[in-house]
Amino acid sequence: MIMPSRQEARPAVALIGGGRIGRIHAGNAASHPAMSLKYVIDPNADTAAALALRYGVAATSLEIALADAAIAGVIVASPTDQHLTHCLQAAAAGKAIFCEKPIDLSVERARAAAGALAKARLFLGFNRRFDPSFRALRRKLQAGAIGNLETLHIISHDPAPPPVSYIKVSGGLFKDMTIHDFDVARWLLAEPVVEVYAMAACLVDPAIGAADDIDTAKVLLRTASGRMAVISNTRRSGYGYDQRIEAFGSGGAVRVDNVTATTVAVWGEEGATRAPFQNFFLERYAEAYRAEMDHFAAVLRGEEPSVGFADGVRALELAEAAGRSHATGRPVALSGGP
Amino acid sequence: MIMPSRQEARPAVALIGGGRIGRIHAGNAASHPAMSLKYVIDPNADTAAALALRYGVAATSLEIALADAAIAGVIVASPTDQHLTHCLQAAAAGKAIFCEKPIDLSVERARAAAGALAKARLFLGFNRRFDPSFRALRRKLQAGAIGNLETLHIISHDPAPPPVSYIKVSGGLFKDMTIHDFDVARWLLAEPVVEVYAMAACLVDPAIGAADDIDTAKVLLRTASGRMAVISNTRRSGYGYDQRIEAFGSGGAVRVDNVTATTVAVWGEEGATRAPFQNFFLERYAEAYRAEMDHFAAVLRGEEPSVGFADGVRALELAEAAGRSHATGRPVALSGGP
Amino acid sequence: MIMPSRQEARPAVALIGGGRIGRIHAGNAASHPAMSLKYVIDPNADTAAALALRYGVAATSLEIALADAAIAGVIVASPTDQHLTHCLQAAAAGKAIFCEKPIDLSVERARAAAGALAKARLFLGFNRRFDPSFRALRRKLQAGAIGNLETLHIISHDPAPPPVSYIKVSGGLFKDMTIHDFDVARWLLAEPVVEVYAMAACLVDPAIGAADDIDTAKVLLRTASGRMAVISNTRRSGYGYDQRIEAFGSGGAVRVDNVTATTVAVWGEEGATRAPFQNFFLERYAEAYRAEMDHFAAVLRGEEPSVGFADGVRALELAEAAGRSHATGRPVALSGGP
Amino acid sequence: MIMPSRQEARPAVALIGGGRIGRIHAGNAASHPAMSLKYVIDPNADTAAALALRYGVAATSLEIALADAAIAGVIVASPTDQHLTHCLQAAAAGKAIFCEKPIDLSVERARAAAGALAKARLFLGFNRRFDPSFRALRRKLQAGAIGNLETLHIISHDPAPPPVSYIKVSGGLFKDMTIHDFDVARWLLAEPVVEVYAMAACLVDPAIGAADDIDTAKVLLRTASGRMAVISNTRRSGYGYDQRIEAFGSGGAVRVDNVTATTVAVWGEEGATRAPFQNFFLERYAEAYRAEMDHFAAVLRGEEPSVGFADGVRALELAEAAGRSHATGRPVALSGGP
Repeated sequence: MIMPSRQEARPAVALIGGGRIGRIHAGNAASHPAMSLKYVIDPNADTAAALALRYGVAATSLEIALADAAIAGVIVASPTDQHLTHCLQAAAAGKAIFCEKPIDLSVERARAAAGALAKARLFLGFNRRFDPSFRALRRKLQAGAIGNLETLHIISHDPAPPPVSYIKVSGGLFKDMTIHDFDVARWLLAEPVVEVYAMAACLVDPAIGAADDIDTAKVLLRTASGRMAVISNTRRSGYGYDQRIEAFGSGGAVRVDNVTATTVAVWGEEGATRAPFQNFFLERYAEAYRAEMDHFAAVLRGEEPSVGFADGVRALELAEAAGRSHATGRPVALSGGP
Repeated sequence: MIMPSRQEARPAVALIGGGRIGRIHAGNAASHPAMSLKYVIDPNADTAAALALRYGVAATSLEIALADAAIAGVIVASPTDQHLTHCLQAAAAGKAIFCEKPIDLSVERARAAAGALAKARLFLGFNRRFDPSFRALRRKLQAGAIGNLETLHIISHDPAPPPVSYIKVSGGLFKDMTIHDFDVARWLLAEPVVEVYAMAACLVDPAIGAADDIDTAKVLLRTASGRMAVISNTRRSGYGYDQRIEAFGSGGAVRVDNVTATTVAVWGEEGATRAPFQNFFLERYAEAYRAEMDHFAAVLRGEEPSVGFADGVRALELAEAAGRSHATGRPVALSGGP
Repeated sequence: MIMPSRQEARPAVALIGGGRIGRIHAGNAASHPAMSLKYVIDPNADTAAALALRYGVAATSLEIALADAAIAGVIVASPTDQHLTHCLQAAAAGKAIFCEKPIDLSVERARAAAGALAKARLFLGFNRRFDPSFRALRRKLQAGAIGNLETLHIISHDPAPPPVSYIKVSGGLFKDMTIHDFDVARWLLAEPVVEVYAMAACLVDPAIGAADDIDTAKVLLRTASGRMAVISNTRRSGYGYDQRIEAFGSGGAVRVDNVTATTVAVWGEEGATRAPFQNFFLERYAEAYRAEMDHFAAVLRGEEPSVGFADGVRALELAEAAGRSHATGRPVALSGGP
Repeated sequence: MIMPSRQEARPAVALIGGGRIGRIHAGNAASHPAMSLKYVIDPNADTAAALALRYGVAATSLEIALADAAIAGVIVASPTDQHLTHCLQAAAAGKAIFCEKPIDLSVERARAAAGALAKARLFLGFNRRFDPSFRALRRKLQAGAIGNLETLHIISHDPAPPPVSYIKVSGGLFKDMTIHDFDVARWLLAEPVVEVYAMAACLVDPAIGAADDIDTAKVLLRTASGRMAVISNTRRSGYGYDQRIEAFGSGGAVRVDNVTATTVAVWGEEGATRAPFQNFFLERYAEAYRAEMDHFAAVLRGEEPSVGFADGVRALELAEAAGRSHATGRPVALSGGP
């Protein structure tokens, strides 16, 4: 009878944060063939213990985890306002980092950390970049399937708004929700954005407006060469999670449609009704989260992160510009660095 | 043997202009059960004669046609810069009018004609309002299928650009092409537009830029209550004629997709390839043109035109506002009259 | 003022039968640029007069119409049991014939007429052969888009059953409804059918069973080279008119999907609901009926009918074989003539 | 620091067979929160060792595994001709069983084992019953979404044929491939099948015919109450893995469409090309295999298997009947037991 240890030879990682997204990453890390989850860290002892029990790992403190030479990487899934702090600590300990988006809510604070994180192997988890359909769209663009990209439409509608308590600490629609779309736009436009115009309003829930936020927006971006992008956001679609992209080029268009929960359709006298869209991001992007962990495994093996700290800062800059545009009613120019 | 005259009892109409769209209207009028085509008028004698022969009617002059008491209505399909003149002549003669869009290329000139046309029974042929799918979408909105309308996306992409010679006399993208979408937006938003922002560029053909026009645009509209609309235009899609609408409301969305030429699809190893979209407007809106003639028949019977002179002026105002926004790089406020 | 006669130079036709399908053909013939409708014949004087008035033509008798040397062709839209008689009369008078399907309800009677009709220019109106989507599918097959055709699925489901009074004189499901699918199968399989097996039942309405008919069937066909076809029929789908074809070959598949009334879809929490299918054959095949008239115009100009008497007999033979298979519970072999 | 053992409290299972499907089950069992994989058994020591290493478990012999009181269940993924033997051994040891389909290739042999397996908790892995879309379709049927089920179409086309060496030991198309569809038909028709008619041929590869097998089939089933089903099979579609179901009832239809690898589509002048279908069963049914393991976990907790030994025998009886029908050219009657 052969009894190998399945843990050997696979780099160990620690997870900070046992919330909703932390639990997703914990499961993916625990079952990943090329890494092993060793520690779970959460200020709430019950949360940490439950997660540790679930995956047969240890609940511990950040200090212990970072001091463990066996730990090659850290997954930062703490609350957004602690992302930078945890990244800086992990970087100081020489660990590879997988940080949830956004890098922070303040461009200024983020820039201040740039020096200390310059040499860190930091992978920023913009999940849409790892969605199979979005990746296939990008490959089509890169393969020249539609000639030169001219304009881009991104539809990103949430099924229903979060509680207002969440809205209040979210950083606002542009930094909390559009941040994904700014990153997707940057990734696909493949050149610097030089102008942002945002038309936005509170149409969904007056309580969101009372919290000084908006819930509906149409944002226009323009790049140096003249490419244009439209981003459409709402906190409440009323029809599920709507995540589509259309890219228009000199030789045609390429698009990603929504994913339905099943392919069942009922045909009746009133028409055909198909299954609703996959709802919500934990389902829609389940495969993207697994692909993120694959990428982090590659980073642990020495590969360069495909999306990093600077991407987080750029997306944040676009979010701040959109906020200024909305506040002033004017388009906002950006320096357009890469 | 009974030999009835098929012309009796049906109101007679005259057609001005035997060009592309004039020929469509001629065919629809000639075969319409509730009207009879009596005259065709065109400055080019051969054009007039050919069309007259085709439908077994008389080629004549505008004077004779307007002087004929049997003529109940006039279809104005002359070049755009003569629309107003012909409408005014027909109105002076007391005829009902079916005028092709746009009413004119100048808001100022159009407004100057407002008094003389105030009492005319003038039906302005914005074809999209008569498309079965767009009508069905509007009925869904009116029936409350998506609750309160919040935002609107209109995609209107031409397959390929017209000759630059056409561009030069077209009035520019906003008055020539977006004019349709401005009207559709007004029709669906169902309240006055108070703000227009246009981001536009010449991306398709430098010759269009050299002619001082643009070929690609994203236009944002906002209404008094805060509804928003996005219009996307390009003179060249590279994939056919793209005519889609998505309306987002408090309780869901309603959309109109493109119409394919056939429902054939080929499934092969590389995926499934379906038939291209109907291409171009003569096919895509063939049924709309027939429905326009049905509506004109109703106008001849005394019904109020569902879209008229004022709608033409409003659409033109939006086009001019978009032009100013593009020129200044700023949003443009409108008075927001109905 | 030029007053051409629109009737000159266009061959004149007479229509026999002012029922539902007769009225469709009357409208298409009357507005066709390459023929002129001259006479309408119907035993019911009111029916004939109404149709004559509608199109400004003469209601007359068959004798007068056939005696008129100006009449080049006859459209036979009489009741099925008079098709053969009218075809024989028209053929004797040397007229081209456009006969509605089926040629008759009896193979025996039809064969008896074969000699007299051998030299007639008889076009049999199997409308599906003129549907743009079905034609596009056939062109794909002929162009080798799926390599060698191996099997074929034809779905032909009616929305709701006709009155039992109709069922009783219809000739039964196979001769009344499947006849279309037998013809489509022959047209696409492109080789003789040598075996028929029919599994059928009365599942929709017991009154149909009481009238000694069936309302639901699955029919298998096999050709000499081994190609197979499945035909699915029901008199009542409960979801509209279902008219689909899938052809499977050595290199892929080609299929025709249903046509929806509009392209509108509503997205709500329960899923997306699109518009119902076009319903019923007068709408679904409106364009096919127009294309049939185009073909008859070509026949009037001397072209060979693309589908004729022999095709009508072959389809009837398949219907009779299906009936025998259902009655005996056994597959039925056919001689497999072309 | 808390160090729980993740193995505790979860029932342990052993896997027999480290082939393609065995590896899938191994992965699903190893990462399943409600069971733990303890042993892997395979006659090939390298295969067993590799799999054991992959999941950190022991490679051992069947005797040791069955003798281990900690083992609650056995997953039988051995070659088909050993399924029965392994099931009997596991049953004798009092273990719960998850056996891959088919239960055997011989109805006779399977029936002979019925007594010994009568009391075994045996779950037979017909994967299609666990596919989310097929399950959703069945729920719609059960919820009355289409009234009374009348007929059923099952399309099950493989992308490309297996090697002829596989064909030779497969038991033939009906027992190897159609067996799935017979089970799906039984599951959905929800009443005994009383008649089978099979039209089949070797159209894909003459080598399959030389091996005395067929590669293309259309099979008709009829139930006692008159429901009918059509099954379509081919060993080579040329367009990927085609797994569709359409169920037609008194009040409409419900259908399951194929699953595409991504939702990307490219729109060009020739039409729109969408991504290919998921290809092949390891991808298409990945979620079904996970759901099977969920069900086996429930069986380990004491739940009744939802599909068992008797279902395997019934499906095999239908396969044998189809073979007789093909051989004799006649429909075959079945006793129609439940």
